[in-house]
Amino acid sequence: MLAKYLPFLSWAKSYERAEFNSDLIAAVVVTIMLIPQGMAYAMLAGLPPQAGLYGAMLPLILYALVGSSPALAVGPVAVVALMTATAAGTVAEIGAPGFHLAALWIALLSGVMMLVMGIFRLGFLANFLSHPVISGFITAAGLLIAASQLRHILGADVRGKTLPEVIPSLVANISSLSATTVFLSLSVLGFLLWSRKGLPRVMIRTGLSEPVAKLIGKTALLIAVVTSTLIVWGFGLDQRGVAIVGDIPRGLPPIALPAFDPTLIQLLVIPAMMIAIVGYVESMSIAQTLAAKKRQSLDPDRELIALGLANLGAGVTNAMPVTGGLSRSIVNYDAGASTPAAGAMTAVLIGLAVIALTPLMYYLPSATLAAIIIVAVISLLDFRTLPRTWAYSRADGAAMAATMGVTLLIGVEQGLMAGVGLSLVLFLYRTSRPHMAVIGQVPGTEHFRNIERHDVVTDPSVFSIRVDESLYFPNARALEDRLTRALHDLPDLRHVVLQCTAVNYIDASALESLEAINERLQAAGVAFHLSEVKGPVMDQLERSHLIDALTGSVFLSQFDAMQTLAPEVTRKCIDAPRFETKLPRR
Amino acid sequence: MLAKYLPFLSWAKSYERAEFNSDLIAAVVVTIMLIPQGMAYAMLAGLPPQAGLYGAMLPLILYALVGSSPALAVGPVAVVALMTATAAGTVAEIGAPGFHLAALWIALLSGVMMLVMGIFRLGFLANFLSHPVISGFITAAGLLIAASQLRHILGADVRGKTLPEVIPSLVANISSLSATTVFLSLSVLGFLLWSRKGLPRVMIRTGLSEPVAKLIGKTALLIAVVTSTLIVWGFGLDQRGVAIVGDIPRGLPPIALPAFDPTLIQLLVIPAMMIAIVGYVESMSIAQTLAAKKRQSLDPDRELIALGLANLGAGVTNAMPVTGGLSRSIVNYDAGASTPAAGAMTAVLIGLAVIALTPLMYYLPSATLAAIIIVAVISLLDFRTLPRTWAYSRADGAAMAATMGVTLLIGVEQGLMAGVGLSLVLFLYRTSRPHMAVIGQVPGTEHFRNIERHDVVTDPSVFSIRVDESLYFPNARALEDRLTRALHDLPDLRHVVLQCTAVNYIDASALESLEAINERLQAAGVAFHLSEVKGPVMDQLERSHLIDALTGSVFLSQFDAMQTLAPEVTRKCIDAPRFETKLPRR
Repeated sequence: MLAKYLPFLSWAKSYERAEFNSDLIAAVVVTIMLIPQGMAYAMLAGLPPQAGLYGAMLPLILYALVGSSPALAVGPVAVVALMTATAAGTVAEIGAPGFHLAALWIALLSGVMMLVMGIFRLGFLANFLSHPVISGFITAAGLLIAASQLRHILGADVRGKTLPEVIPSLVANISSLSATTVFLSLSVLGFLLWSRKGLPRVMIRTGLSEPVAKLIGKTALLIAVVTSTLIVWGFGLDQRGVAIVGDIPRGLPPIALPAFDPTLIQLLVIPAMMIAIVGYVESMSIAQTLAAKKRQSLDPDRELIALGLANLGAGVTNAMPVTGGLSRSIVNYDAGASTPAAGAMTAVLIGLAVIALTPLMYYLPSATLAAIIIVAVISLLDFRTLPRTWAYSRADGAAMAATMGVTLLIGVEQGLMAGVGLSLVLFLYRTSRPHMAVIGQVPGTEHFRNIERHDVVTDPSVFSIRVDESLYFPNARALEDRLTRALHDLPDLRHVVLQCTAVNYIDASALESLEAINERLQAAGVAFHLSEVKGPVMDQLERSHLIDALTGSVFLSQFDAMQTLAPEVTRKCIDAPRFETKLPRR
Repeated sequence: MLAKYLPFLSWAKSYERAEFNSDLIAAVVVTIMLIPQGMAYAMLAGLPPQAGLYGAMLPLILYALVGSSPALAVGPVAVVALMTATAAGTVAEIGAPGFHLAALWIALLSGVMMLVMGIFRLGFLANFLSHPVISGFITAAGLLIAASQLRHILGADVRGKTLPEVIPSLVANISSLSATTVFLSLSVLGFLLWSRKGLPRVMIRTGLSEPVAKLIGKTALLIAVVTSTLIVWGFGLDQRGVAIVGDIPRGLPPIALPAFDPTLIQLLVIPAMMIAIVGYVESMSIAQTLAAKKRQSLDPDRELIALGLANLGAGVTNAMPVTGGLSRSIVNYDAGASTPAAGAMTAVLIGLAVIALTPLMYYLPSATLAAIIIVAVISLLDFRTLPRTWAYSRADGAAMAATMGVTLLIGVEQGLMAGVGLSLVLFLYRTSRPHMAVIGQVPGTEHFRNIERHDVVTDPSVFSIRVDESLYFPNARALEDRLTRALHDLPDLRHVVLQCTAVNYIDASALESLEAINERLQAAGVAFHLSEVKGPVMDQLERSHLIDALTGSVFLSQFDAMQTLAPEVTRKCIDAPRFETKLPRR
């Protein structure tokens, strides 16, 4: 019973030596990535480096207790860090005391929202972010993240949250760049880009087995951090314009609620909601991809609760908002993490690092962290999906383009809202003008198809029409108008059959419209029939007066209807040799 | 060619004596109603009485030139007057110089919006106001209108725009009521209510024919106005606390653009948009009801343009926003208006009245106008639709209740937005959890139905499923989850057939999901087939890679699919005696 809410109880019981070993190896590899990444994403969020490290401690332990994904690596991630910087930036300047407070409240608020969504099973809300919108948003956010790091890469005062802010700032300040910083950051960037494939290759050449070489390849971040720190320290580059991380407080963070400020909280509700949704969607899509590989399944609402607790943990330990991150999760999975205990071990290792290693990071250059961010973000950029999506569906392509454009030019929250809004409006627009097909019988079968696309047989006294949409308020009148036209065009008309295969719902507006159609057809001496009404729709219609008032019948199938209304034509047609009806345009 | 844009050219050519006569009679009857109603609705809008009269002049002529409905009586109407009062009240106090200016700009802005919507054929946007939302809104607005007239009925200072404002004000001020005013207004109210049926009955008893008696019945408003004016004048009641209309400027209004004020205009854009939409929807539903009676059809976009011009005409002649009104349109229709010329004649008659009769209205009591408003509004109230709608559909009932509740308690604009918003959210929620039916063959037919509702035949190696919804982003994963479960539950599974009868659209998110399903089934050794894919959906899928990658086939019908995949079972089933499959729960 308790295990339902605390899944770790079920796996902890049967936890074995072998699992412990593989979890520990994964934890060590992830920790080596997480120390520099955590500090880098804290910098991206405009927070002191320890906020990133703290974000990799209590949150991971809480996720391990409740979460259901064994491989998901929770902690600071780039897109959420960017959104945090943007949201906190609306209430305070980076570096001001209110800024970190705002970030903590964003973590707490989004944590509470995730918890509430999970408890009330509202995880489905995340479905309203369509794939094209998410994909467009992540790519645009990746570009903005890269742009935000120009400051650290160049050592020049380039600022701004959107391209129209960053570009003029870049032009104005490019001359004040620090050549030493640029040299350092390009070196680190080059090394990191090379190391992805080059480092394992070198390792294999030295005689290591491929899996081990790959694992060592993951230490590239550590190598970059250690080497660049030593260089700055050795050559005193911090005296020559190279920005360094400086003092990081030693020891574990205290657990305490941040200062309560109702005005601040009110301003952060909307951004926190968006961060909660984006964080959840990002994390869930990673967790599901990994679960699918092992044919496991995840409970979305459980995941929401676990991520919510993780963010509450971040909020009370001076950390930053967290979620599941792509790169570390893949590393965690590849390194063999077999239970969520791997995450808890990572947290312990990070804790040890915070206690023991922070003084060694004094000379770590910001340029190295910026290079780490840029390398991480490159994998987020995806420019090939836009043209492919546009070719498949104009509506999806437009939503994706709008998301990218608005995110880059106006801002991340606006971009997300534009994408979701446009997707919904375009969907509603489409359903408001439903496709309707006049149908006839395919010779040799009991099957009915569009007379414009197939060679089918009809009877002049029966008008059979299929509406390819649920009947609801935006399209309620469309069928009325179409049938008025039919009544006008077809003098011999005696029966109208509405095939309801595609009608999944009939709302009150459409019901009124059907009643009007029934009356109007009756006045013209034409009977109105329904065919293939689905169970749930029939249940609903039975609560109305339409079925009683209907001048015609409700037929199980369109074939039944035609057998009754035009028996001769129908019998002849089914006995006819089957015409080779091709699928449209194939 | 020109006649397409100016429909009056077509009917004016063949305009005959008989048509002129019937139009003139209708115009006289409508004018007799319109003079008191125009002044009453101007009072309701918080404007001087002449604003209502001016609203029945140039706007009617412009509508007659472009509009296509012969019987629609355009002019000041109650709901739009209430919305105008609310919107103008947000920028100025009633009576302040800015108030009428705001009303003029509302007319101009909503006129421009209607024009633009008409030109760009955006009339479909009005479909997003569902019947239950409109019906709930009109009823709630009717109650608010009646409440707003308590002031004039009682002669006490009762103010407020929503029930929570009106009720305390009523309680606080009830003691200061004017007994004379109450007596006068209740007398008028009683007479008007009686006159609807009583007056024609009396006329018939005096020997008049029924149609003539009915027409004279329409003069009740005039009788009330004249009698109450004479009483106030004769007994000097204006000295005893009875409020009167007072001076009305004599002569035609000048044509001029109102003072330009960008800040004001910006504040009025949203309310003007809502007034444009409500005005259009109200007018269109009246015009369509009347057109249906004569089996005529209307062009919605043409109507938008005509109403837009009418409002522009109102804005430049010191009038108030206008639209088609229910009561006068019915009178116009019953009195035999046969072309839009009836409207133009009404405008001329009103113009003559403004030139000649306004001094006679000095002693007209506001109480009479308030009684006229209340009688007009009673026909708007409809409390029986809410329970009926709720019984049919919880979603529609909830949207209607929300519209009514928010309108009464918070405000008219908020009520409308709440209704539209809730309708859309509930619709999206429903499509996000689609109904899915596992289907089997109905014995003796080629028809397939839900195995849970019908006695059907299936084959253990084939899993046929019908999704009762278009596949798009909010529900993209639902099918994936359902098939994962089927794969788990059915060990003998070799084929999955997705019957696409109800799938009207597959967006990019759902396409990715189908591709994932195809791959996952392939990995499990199961072929994935589609059946009954509609033409437009097939066209779209052919622009993707899904059809090439599909492990199975696309079948014309579900029966074709089963004949190929499970030929024996299918053949046996179709040869079986037809089982009397009842329609669900009937």
